[in-house]
Amino acid sequence: MSQPKPVEYADASPEVRAVFDDIKRLRNVEDVNNFWKYLARDPAGLKRTWESVKEVMAAGALSPLVKEMVYVAVSVTNSCGYCIASHTVGARKAGMTDAMFAELMAVVGMANETNRLASGYQVEIDEQFKA
Amino acid sequence: MSQPKPVEYADASPEVRAVFDDIKRLRNVEDVNNFWKYLARDPAGLKRTWESVKEVMAAGALSPLVKEMVYVAVSVTNSCGYCIASHTVGARKAGMTDAMFAELMAVVGMANETNRLASGYQVEIDEQFKA
Amino acid sequence: MSQPKPVEYADASPEVRAVFDDIKRLRNVEDVNNFWKYLARDPAGLKRTWESVKEVMAAGALSPLVKEMVYVAVSVTNSCGYCIASHTVGARKAGMTDAMFAELMAVVGMANETNRLASGYQVEIDEQFKA
Amino acid sequence: MSQPKPVEYADASPEVRAVFDDIKRLRNVEDVNNFWKYLARDPAGLKRTWESVKEVMAAGALSPLVKEMVYVAVSVTNSCGYCIASHTVGARKAGMTDAMFAELMAVVGMANETNRLASGYQVEIDEQFKA
Amino acid sequence: MSQPKPVEYADASPEVRAVFDDIKRLRNVEDVNNFWKYLARDPAGLKRTWESVKEVMAAGALSPLVKEMVYVAVSVTNSCGYCIASHTVGARKAGMTDAMFAELMAVVGMANETNRLASGYQVEIDEQFKA
Amino acid sequence: MSQPKPVEYADASPEVRAVFDDIKRLRNVEDVNNFWKYLARDPAGLKRTWESVKEVMAAGALSPLVKEMVYVAVSVTNSCGYCIASHTVGARKAGMTDAMFAELMAVVGMANETNRLASGYQVEIDEQFKA
Repeated sequence: MSQPKPVEYADASPEVRAVFDDIKRLRNVEDVNNFWKYLARDPAGLKRTWESVKEVMAAGALSPLVKEMVYVAVSVTNSCGYCIASHTVGARKAGMTDAMFAELMAVVGMANETNRLASGYQVEIDEQFKA
Repeated sequence: MSQPKPVEYADASPEVRAVFDDIKRLRNVEDVNNFWKYLARDPAGLKRTWESVKEVMAAGALSPLVKEMVYVAVSVTNSCGYCIASHTVGARKAGMTDAMFAELMAVVGMANETNRLASGYQVEIDEQFKA
Repeated sequence: MSQPKPVEYADASPEVRAVFDDIKRLRNVEDVNNFWKYLARDPAGLKRTWESVKEVMAAGALSPLVKEMVYVAVSVTNSCGYCIASHTVGARKAGMTDAMFAELMAVVGMANETNRLASGYQVEIDEQFKA
Repeated sequence: MSQPKPVEYADASPEVRAVFDDIKRLRNVEDVNNFWKYLARDPAGLKRTWESVKEVMAAGALSPLVKEMVYVAVSVTNSCGYCIASHTVGARKAGMTDAMFAELMAVVGMANETNRLASGYQVEIDEQFKA
Repeated sequence: MSQPKPVEYADASPEVRAVFDDIKRLRNVEDVNNFWKYLARDPAGLKRTWESVKEVMAAGALSPLVKEMVYVAVSVTNSCGYCIASHTVGARKAGMTDAMFAELMAVVGMANETNRLASGYQVEIDEQFKA
Repeated sequence: MSQPKPVEYADASPEVRAVFDDIKRLRNVEDVNNFWKYLARDPAGLKRTWESVKEVMAAGALSPLVKEMVYVAVSVTNSCGYCIASHTVGARKAGMTDAMFAELMAVVGMANETNRLASGYQVEIDEQFKA
């Protein structure tokens, strides 16, 4: 009662179905995942978010695999359970091996540690790092 | 007065100098950056942190370039000014181009956005994403 | 065993009951929610927190609805599951519609995205924005 | 050297100028602020971000004033210095008074406090708050 | 122009002066620090915050030194520059030595690292840790 | 399928068993907790993390009790559910009483609140707090 319920394809408006169809086609899946079903309560937001994600995550100067791993790194840093679960699967589909996942976690952990050491020691930015 | 001052090479103990020398040799730089000089107030912590960073950031299943970009992604998510400045330079030295940086920022921004949409909509984890 | 258990009204001290009664009266509910029952293990903290919340969330220059939506925005940014669930209900009781919730999430998502773009690009503060 | 430099109007491509012109027109300002000048190194990202911000921040079920205050709330929670400075000005232009700002800060502070109390006490979600 | 200016003692209302006097007396300082001068634009918020801080930071089951170190740990994790600077000084005044500071930073860094490893590996809570 | 599964002692390599044995011996437990079983998919990372944790959490200038409470403070600030659950138990084993826990939570909550007030009011660092 308190929260918008996810929208299933059968109950979706034509506007929402068009986005769902595009997601299914591009990702080659039979159904969109829950994230999109919840967003569908806001058709304009659904469309805007999907268009942006599609553009940002496409292969470019960085590969889809690297982009998915960066997504995992951010989600882990933010402790977003849903995002960690879904993008870890996404990264695996894009080719992330167990060894790559282990190294990714090691870098994310280390970066979170040294971020705090730099802040806590109030380290001044070196001249050569200034923008 | 309130904070430990950075330790310069000339004033460093043999234990600290050994770490500084290793950093300078491995990174081929004339002096270590401020982060290490501040940490040097705690020689055991300096050594432990450097040994870990060296192991974690070495080429493995992921390239040093990908690792540096993940470091930037975490530092940006944490708003750590020093870390963003130093690791952006590190990533550039490892080969990050302007186009790669722009795409990296786009993914980091998008991930931070959708992380909140997933949390705010209280999206349930799909069966296929469960660990 | 590891954690303080929530305190039910029947088992509460007079000091705790006085706070519970005030919450029930002001919010017109039959029982306080779990947050207050856990805090009740620390009667002084319970009283201090409730007095502060009551003062801060009262109608003033901002309406209770706006205040509840800001609460949701902060809780989403912090990924606090309990807080998102309880304050989303609170905001709805204060008048938040589905359309308002959708726009709130869109702003929260967008702000989290552009926050990271501003940090990652190391954007300097414009003269006209300086305090 | 390490970071992309901001792009001034005089040096901008037609694609970037079109976005800058739209920002200046819509906001009725003589020049865009630094955020957009930095993003302009990535013309596609500049356009995508501006189109999204324009759509998300437009008057709708929530007023531009409420949206700007939510933006400030998120930026404060994320400790994003640039974002706090620029959106506080934005909120003031949209009508935020000193009294409203003070109450906004009080709510943001309180929410950040109780978010941690809820997490630290490991409070279970009440039945009536379940989605 | 955009931000409330700090309130100096000479310009303060009797209500604000009463709080300033209490801070100066309790902390044995000649002037309050900037944090309180900014908050003073909101006299009710100033008073509420000071009363809460005074109560929370008083010696109790935990010593003022431990409390100040916990304050630093939180401020470092949140990247709050002002808070790190001021509470590091506060902790030193309460007795924190260089060795204690170094160990505090090491724990804060390690906790931030393992927090992410636990989240990223999606570790299930062990039975014996359940509340 | 999507995530590395935890490694049980019976299935562990000699390298992993050596770490597990060291943890069990030092902590005097019959089995290691899930965190270590998940990390064990990455034997080098398991060993590095354990060696660091052992060194950082040992009694020194700060007691193990203070260190565990700082660990809880960081985990609460990061909303890391697993870490809050496990380190709260760890702190209790090290001697944290109900009264100490209540005061710890009060300080963590207050620090998170005032961190945001300091950021939101854009408070300038006082001369006496400068590093």
